[in-house]
Amino acid sequence: MKMPDVTQPFELILFGAAGDLAHRKLLPALYNLHIDERLNSHGRIWAIIRPEKKESAYLKQTRKCLLHYGSDMTDEQWQSFSARIHFVGIDLAKEEGYRQLSVKLDNPDSNCIFYCAVHSKLYPTLCEQLHQNKLISDNCSIVLEKPIGHDLTSALAINQRVSEYFSEKQIYRIDHYLGKETVQNLLALRFANSIFEHQWNQRYIDHIQITISETVGVEQRANFYEGTGAMRDMLQNHLLQLLCMTAMEPPATMDAEAVRDEKVKVLQALKPIEEADIHENVVRGQYEQGASEGEMVAGYKDEPRVDSESTTDTFVALKAEIDNWRWSGVPFYLRTGKRLAQRSCEIVVQFKEVPHSIFEMQHKKTMANKLVFRLQPDEGVRLQLCEKRVGNHLQVRPMTLALHEAESHKKRVPEAYERLLVDAINLNPTLFLRQDELMAAWAWIDPILQYWQQSEQAPDSYSAGSWGPAAATLLLAKDGRLWEENG
Amino acid sequence: MKMPDVTQPFELILFGAAGDLAHRKLLPALYNLHIDERLNSHGRIWAIIRPEKKESAYLKQTRKCLLHYGSDMTDEQWQSFSARIHFVGIDLAKEEGYRQLSVKLDNPDSNCIFYCAVHSKLYPTLCEQLHQNKLISDNCSIVLEKPIGHDLTSALAINQRVSEYFSEKQIYRIDHYLGKETVQNLLALRFANSIFEHQWNQRYIDHIQITISETVGVEQRANFYEGTGAMRDMLQNHLLQLLCMTAMEPPATMDAEAVRDEKVKVLQALKPIEEADIHENVVRGQYEQGASEGEMVAGYKDEPRVDSESTTDTFVALKAEIDNWRWSGVPFYLRTGKRLAQRSCEIVVQFKEVPHSIFEMQHKKTMANKLVFRLQPDEGVRLQLCEKRVGNHLQVRPMTLALHEAESHKKRVPEAYERLLVDAINLNPTLFLRQDELMAAWAWIDPILQYWQQSEQAPDSYSAGSWGPAAATLLLAKDGRLWEENG
Repeated sequence: MKMPDVTQPFELILFGAAGDLAHRKLLPALYNLHIDERLNSHGRIWAIIRPEKKESAYLKQTRKCLLHYGSDMTDEQWQSFSARIHFVGIDLAKEEGYRQLSVKLDNPDSNCIFYCAVHSKLYPTLCEQLHQNKLISDNCSIVLEKPIGHDLTSALAINQRVSEYFSEKQIYRIDHYLGKETVQNLLALRFANSIFEHQWNQRYIDHIQITISETVGVEQRANFYEGTGAMRDMLQNHLLQLLCMTAMEPPATMDAEAVRDEKVKVLQALKPIEEADIHENVVRGQYEQGASEGEMVAGYKDEPRVDSESTTDTFVALKAEIDNWRWSGVPFYLRTGKRLAQRSCEIVVQFKEVPHSIFEMQHKKTMANKLVFRLQPDEGVRLQLCEKRVGNHLQVRPMTLALHEAESHKKRVPEAYERLLVDAINLNPTLFLRQDELMAAWAWIDPILQYWQQSEQAPDSYSAGSWGPAAATLLLAKDGRLWEENG
Repeated sequence: MKMPDVTQPFELILFGAAGDLAHRKLLPALYNLHIDERLNSHGRIWAIIRPEKKESAYLKQTRKCLLHYGSDMTDEQWQSFSARIHFVGIDLAKEEGYRQLSVKLDNPDSNCIFYCAVHSKLYPTLCEQLHQNKLISDNCSIVLEKPIGHDLTSALAINQRVSEYFSEKQIYRIDHYLGKETVQNLLALRFANSIFEHQWNQRYIDHIQITISETVGVEQRANFYEGTGAMRDMLQNHLLQLLCMTAMEPPATMDAEAVRDEKVKVLQALKPIEEADIHENVVRGQYEQGASEGEMVAGYKDEPRVDSESTTDTFVALKAEIDNWRWSGVPFYLRTGKRLAQRSCEIVVQFKEVPHSIFEMQHKKTMANKLVFRLQPDEGVRLQLCEKRVGNHLQVRPMTLALHEAESHKKRVPEAYERLLVDAINLNPTLFLRQDELMAAWAWIDPILQYWQQSEQAPDSYSAGSWGPAAATLLLAKDGRLWEENG
């Protein structure tokens, strides 16, 4: 029998167990870990639901979700998984439920993980209640979902409150993009291949693009999304984290502190975008009515529960620069948005053209080498090279190598949350954000958020199903560049 | 209708038309060019055979050979191809036949290519006769097969005699390895991909290996091979040419002179192997009885027409160094031999290890990047990278990308001789050797040949079917390296 990834018993207390994230991501990940026998058999999942909610209704809903998100679960499999699920009904704002939790959690030696899949404004109360009910001990940790706060001040305040009850090494700030296989492979490709890492700098790299595009609109999440927007929901965390992984110096080891030290250095080296440059370097967009995946869809302002005067950003693109030796002069173009042409997440590392070409060109377009890390919809890496066309002429043409092709046929690529849940339960914080990282990220975007708030200009509009406002194209075009055509 | 590669009428006069090379390589290549409609329809092939030989017997033999070397030729195809073949019976040493050739070649405007697939000692007489029979004009050229001479002095003498009748730009010294697609692709991969060429030097490359291994023995060629050996037959030309293509500086253009200027610079920068170092840096071998491809085979000395005291080298391995900025300190290990374990031709570019590894290793063996150009038995390029193993640990493992996989399924890779025949007929000398290149190659190996001649030591023996003498393994082992495992 193989050793499970989680060798110790554990108590995973899932706040927000009935929420969107829990049902779409966390429970399917836990189910996969369970079925693959990667969890200690004495690990329990505590679903924290509203006191008035029926346990049987919750289980029914969970089962439906697991079946919906791709699992070909049998009855036996469901029985064996659901046996791990226990319940406590808690109104998060009231003390009562927590007391009940403290009674039920009768195993003081187990690792205890409080997973907060709820709005970050609830974190302080939640921590305080855990404390008052003596639920926090040295073998407890807390996992915080993003976004933590809505600007630098609020993020600082929440972190300060949480840290009154938990020490920094007990706090796991999750960014599930860091759990993706391809992001891990980015580190392996960079730091285990001299041919890449030796050229990973401003002498050889022309620019870098990071895109996270969604085809969906705001869906049923307007309550959360209004006043949050793409900058806080995606760019401040996921995009900046991917930027850190792409740009960081080689850490001396893969230890959590060594890796996070290097990441925070990148964030601290981000060139501040001055107020005068925001208009030039940052594009804020909001989708209008359009055709998305073959259907007419509403504009953002016409979505349910959205203010008809809303200036919430459903799209943001910006040009970031890193002021250090490695990256000086290399733009990092970031973009993310809802209702875009494709669902995709890619990091494009565009190398410079050869200094002098001696070949006939088959195409006019750039032939420079390019390394692309794809995180969505499928995971993989591709390398663009030039090769000779077979035949008598010495013509070259671009060709693409898929680095993960062979592998992907053999083995299921685990979901990011599977890895991160295992890491959190095992108390391995490498892939979680340290407070200084989070604050550096908020500090960098804060001036942009403030500028937008004061600005009387509305976001640039774009048609649903397009690649965002024209200004996003111009952002690169004025530097003589193009966004990577996705797909 | 597509334009043929050879647009002008031509007269290709094939000396040695009944020989091994003509039947195995030249006529199959001409046949393929003909069938693919790549030759001008008014091009004629003049088979020069012994006067006593019957034309019908020659054609029968040729047809048999074409069928043997992989062609699924129909009767119609053979008829249409053989219509190009014309005959002149010539005893190369006598004037008579040349006079007849001059009568038959009645088209003074056509390009005239004298292709010498005969022993190089015959080249001077042949040229003199062509001259005396007024067969040489400005639109004539001569193609010389290797090896030209058997040492520096004889090569110089032959070249001098040939150049009394032909100007340097009329002389095409062929090395068919230069016509291989993969060798062309080596140039494309180097000079059209910044990620490779920027690292193509001593800072990033640990060493380079070039291997041409054959499984066959001397076969029926002992008359030629005795007193020639692997050094003259293979290393002096093919291996040093591959070394030049791998090591040369980027030429300013792909013009013949620009490319050949760079190649000759490499040969001139080869560090002379001093007499005192020959024992250390050069391995001479000769095969003994052994098992080759599942059959017991005789040792070299027991082959038909081989001297039982022969010291002919059927294997040679050496360590070459290039004294210039790019390659200082990077060894080029070359080896070639008959009756080796596999038929193979590969150039292995071994990059240095990463300066510091932060990953768990799956294997103990080197994980450094490697680019391998394979010329035989199939053509292709592969790149060895490290990637992350899928799963929770951050383990890396080597993986190999085949650069030519996609292409190879789509299109027949033309034989080297096809390309070189077209180039010779079209008077494009880029892939042919200039006199100074040839002389530089001879000059570099001459001291080794002389040392062997004076030496009383016999070649190291090795079993047929092995990878050569133990000394060849030691040659790398003492530098802490291993030959690439072929296959």
